[in-house]
Amino acid sequence: MKNISDHYQEVGQWQDGSGPESDIVISSRVRLARNVAGFLFFAHAGSDQRMEVYDLIRTRITTTALNDNFWFLNLEELSEMERTLLTERHLISTQLAQGAGARGVAISHDEKLALMINEEDHLRIQALSSGLQLYETYKTISGIDDILEENMEYSFSPDYGYLTACPTNVGTGIRVSVMLHLPALKMAGQMEKVLRAARDLQLAVRGLYGEGSEPIGDFFQISNQITLGKSEEHIIEELIEFAVQPIIEYERRARRMLMAGHLPVLEDKIYRALGILTHARIISSDESLYLLSYLRLGIYLGLVKHIDLETTNKLFLFTQPAHLQTLCKKTLGTNDRDESRANLIRKYLSE
Amino acid sequence: MKNISDHYQEVGQWQDGSGPESDIVISSRVRLARNVAGFLFFAHAGSDQRMEVYDLIRTRITTTALNDNFWFLNLEELSEMERTLLTERHLISTQLAQGAGARGVAISHDEKLALMINEEDHLRIQALSSGLQLYETYKTISGIDDILEENMEYSFSPDYGYLTACPTNVGTGIRVSVMLHLPALKMAGQMEKVLRAARDLQLAVRGLYGEGSEPIGDFFQISNQITLGKSEEHIIEELIEFAVQPIIEYERRARRMLMAGHLPVLEDKIYRALGILTHARIISSDESLYLLSYLRLGIYLGLVKHIDLETTNKLFLFTQPAHLQTLCKKTLGTNDRDESRANLIRKYLSE
Repeated sequence: MKNISDHYQEVGQWQDGSGPESDIVISSRVRLARNVAGFLFFAHAGSDQRMEVYDLIRTRITTTALNDNFWFLNLEELSEMERTLLTERHLISTQLAQGAGARGVAISHDEKLALMINEEDHLRIQALSSGLQLYETYKTISGIDDILEENMEYSFSPDYGYLTACPTNVGTGIRVSVMLHLPALKMAGQMEKVLRAARDLQLAVRGLYGEGSEPIGDFFQISNQITLGKSEEHIIEELIEFAVQPIIEYERRARRMLMAGHLPVLEDKIYRALGILTHARIISSDESLYLLSYLRLGIYLGLVKHIDLETTNKLFLFTQPAHLQTLCKKTLGTNDRDESRANLIRKYLSE
Repeated sequence: MKNISDHYQEVGQWQDGSGPESDIVISSRVRLARNVAGFLFFAHAGSDQRMEVYDLIRTRITTTALNDNFWFLNLEELSEMERTLLTERHLISTQLAQGAGARGVAISHDEKLALMINEEDHLRIQALSSGLQLYETYKTISGIDDILEENMEYSFSPDYGYLTACPTNVGTGIRVSVMLHLPALKMAGQMEKVLRAARDLQLAVRGLYGEGSEPIGDFFQISNQITLGKSEEHIIEELIEFAVQPIIEYERRARRMLMAGHLPVLEDKIYRALGILTHARIISSDESLYLLSYLRLGIYLGLVKHIDLETTNKLFLFTQPAHLQTLCKKTLGTNDRDESRANLIRKYLSE
């Protein structure tokens, strides 16, 4: 079985910057919330019942056709650093990482699928894709869901649909989100307007790490909040039609206007970011996100030609604290991390 | 005769970064204030008498041995841009540049000497040297003063000495100053202490352009304020012994402490400055001074090896507005200047 330390050498396949609209849509994510019939919800279950649910779902995964494509991790056996590493790769949620009792995750070898056991619900199935691929991503996750459901009875109500720990997930149990990179709208001071429009559509706007994270470095996650009374396809269709496509158009227009009207101002921001990235000796995690965000924009606009997207994507990931420390093969305090981060960035950008 | 447009191609000899203690002392300056006997002080003179004084002193310069070493400029014949160019080169004061009526300046070919006519006094003689060379600079200026005095009667009182327009110059009429580069004291937060000590010694602390200019980019001009009741040599001795030498020691100690204790913090500041200088597309005059100030420190500390002091000294001068526009051969608005400045800096630092 694959070791967790193999996991920091490359970015996950869904983070390779490919896929439709990838100049603006970093990734698409679909997750389903499911609970096993006949067991208390996670928050109300005692440690014995948590363990029972854990064993049950784990067995279902490892004894079906899924087993070949997944590797399984027992969260209780992982160090804090390893759990943070998985969070930085978006393979587990902060809640699963920081939770208590029997918890696990099955991760597909390409990292596009993750099955979390005993997060807020008994089972959370997550599928990730690069670019805007919500329908395809939903189709994949739906296939996994079907395989599991053949072998396991979910809590389901004919009236409400799938039952979940939090009422906001009842029904389809689906959450659909896209991670957007909107530097031009931010620069043009139009983000407030976009955020207000998204909230009017009852969508949630969050940061790089979803629930509980603040937008940083011009990255915004947009997701549905309503899961009841609509089909999964309808939820995806609405998100794309009323939010994602219009925002992509706004961002593209803002980029064109910056290119046409204020090119030196735009170039200045992008090249200063590059200058600092290639010269600084101390860089915080937040600052590196901001600077790399400008660099990413510069690459997509054709203003930065000698650095490729692959390198930039690696840096987004490898400059996060747990990846950085794993790469350096030691635990580092904040100051040492900021120095190691600057060294790592210089090394990658000078290659 | 040399044309003023020849004057922007190189830095003046006194700005070449040579001379004793030049890691900290940029330059030494001595100036004498003199007035011609039998004429009203400049501020009280009518335009006819201003012209008479102008003609008289000009003739004394051009008909003595001085003529071979100097070229003469009639301020009224110069454009505002040309006058600013001379100010940026420290060859005339802002007061002379912006004054009214018959005014002139004789400048030695090496730019180490400048004789201003009808500034605040009828005659201001200035001598500049690189590094800490106050005695030598005074010796030079004294020689010039003697030659002129042989041919012209100065306003002089046996009781008070040389009479000047402003009482603070009465006596020797001498002002002695050094331009210091104190980035380490600034970074260590110790500048306030140094400035207080200098003021306790009745010294004036000013910016790059002397009277009326604020310290910027870690450059501080320190000068005597008392000119009466002490010999010139005594004034120079006191300035060096009680102010310049101790400040040099403080700055050196602060640099050593930064190198020993916080090397990455120091390197980070210096290399970020270099990164911005080599990448920005828009740089203001003030910002370039700040950034070049760090670069200069980095070169002297041996942290920046691939850029030489000569290039840095050129950039200090050429990034000033009038030099920049003269180099670009056109008048530029602020935004265009900031772009041209960034282009110029990148060009010089990439060579």
